[in-house]
Amino acid sequence: MSILRVYKLYFSPNRKYVKALKNLLGFVPGNLSLYRLAFRHKSVAQNVKKGVKNSNERLEFLGDAVLGSIVAEVLFKLYPYEDEGFLTELRSKIVSRVNLNQLARKLGFDKLIEYDSRMVGSTRQGSLLGDAFEALVGAVYLDKGYDFTRNFLVNHIIKSHIDIHQLEKTETNFKSKLIEWCQRHGKDITFELTENQEGESNKLFTVRALVDGEVLGTGKEFNKKNAEKLAAEKTCEALGI
Amino acid sequence: MSILRVYKLYFSPNRKYVKALKNLLGFVPGNLSLYRLAFRHKSVAQNVKKGVKNSNERLEFLGDAVLGSIVAEVLFKLYPYEDEGFLTELRSKIVSRVNLNQLARKLGFDKLIEYDSRMVGSTRQGSLLGDAFEALVGAVYLDKGYDFTRNFLVNHIIKSHIDIHQLEKTETNFKSKLIEWCQRHGKDITFELTENQEGESNKLFTVRALVDGEVLGTGKEFNKKNAEKLAAEKTCEALGI
Repeated sequence: MSILRVYKLYFSPNRKYVKALKNLLGFVPGNLSLYRLAFRHKSVAQNVKKGVKNSNERLEFLGDAVLGSIVAEVLFKLYPYEDEGFLTELRSKIVSRVNLNQLARKLGFDKLIEYDSRMVGSTRQGSLLGDAFEALVGAVYLDKGYDFTRNFLVNHIIKSHIDIHQLEKTETNFKSKLIEWCQRHGKDITFELTENQEGESNKLFTVRALVDGEVLGTGKEFNKKNAEKLAAEKTCEALGI
Repeated sequence: MSILRVYKLYFSPNRKYVKALKNLLGFVPGNLSLYRLAFRHKSVAQNVKKGVKNSNERLEFLGDAVLGSIVAEVLFKLYPYEDEGFLTELRSKIVSRVNLNQLARKLGFDKLIEYDSRMVGSTRQGSLLGDAFEALVGAVYLDKGYDFTRNFLVNHIIKSHIDIHQLEKTETNFKSKLIEWCQRHGKDITFELTENQEGESNKLFTVRALVDGEVLGTGKEFNKKNAEKLAAEKTCEALGI
């Protein structure tokens, strides 16, 4: 163990924080201020300069991108015979807010995140944990570089906490899939509520999905959300995605 | 110059291809088959295994992610006092299909891409160059690793061919911005055409933008696309993005 590590873990004024991070991450962090920032929610951020706040949002932006890239590579190599549609879909399940929130909760992030407790219960609290997870990835990347971050994510997080083959089987969100595909291919996607038939007791909703102005799928259901889902599913079929 | 490089450039049966790549990339590629794959459009792909085609689409998936991560880091460091909304928007301009198509054309990709010439003029040809650019990034990453790819992109591509400060000033696409934000935050976004008023000579379209079912912006215009744009812009304002 290097002298610096011994100092950080046992003698520095931050030793408690360093130990908590080491337990969480499995390694001794270098630049502590990056990790503190990753766990600071905007609800407790202060202005550090004109218009600049010390919250984790910029790190979240960076971490989201780095995480996306590392997960892309993991899947690319894990599934050599699957096409890019499969890889895109599986990645979006892995990095979904729901999945990252669960993951961060399992890892005990709730003990480390600083946030305004008046937020508890509000809708904005929903993605607090997942956002902090992404910000942490950004912090590790800036502190230790890409290859270290990849090894950390693969060996410490993905192998122990994410069941990729299980996620592979969960139901697909065709709407997200369609929107993502359109984003990637520079297409315009719109869902239009075209009819709103009043039946005897239930309303029937008709939704059309338009890609670059062309109707590629229609769904009729007794609630709007399901009508949209169906329209998206049919459009995915039509596009072969 | 190493013996392997000398062999590759002057004696190997692939020397013409190696030289073309070296002119394009500024370095001598290692695994040639990756680069060949990056330039092979699906219109000329063959089945190499049951259901598996040797097109550039899987590499495009990987390269898109690696490119996103590298551009995120470049912007994170270039703009230390801008928030994540600014960074997200500027990145989406840099990696937009339009921008990558232009870039790939400038770099002379049209001479290297293999595709079915019957596709010329069809709508599917639109993103051929930009897709190949992303696939190339994936190939460089697999061939040389992340740090090499970052240096290649920063020093050989971004510094010479992308005017970030110019892109910063170009007009924003509020609809893309809103969809991207919703994707990132796990929100549901829908555009609804609610009214279709017939005026004396022109039709007036009313479009509402709903985030998680809540109307956050409405736009009225004489064509549907502009009504949508306006609704998206108002919604971005309402959300403070």
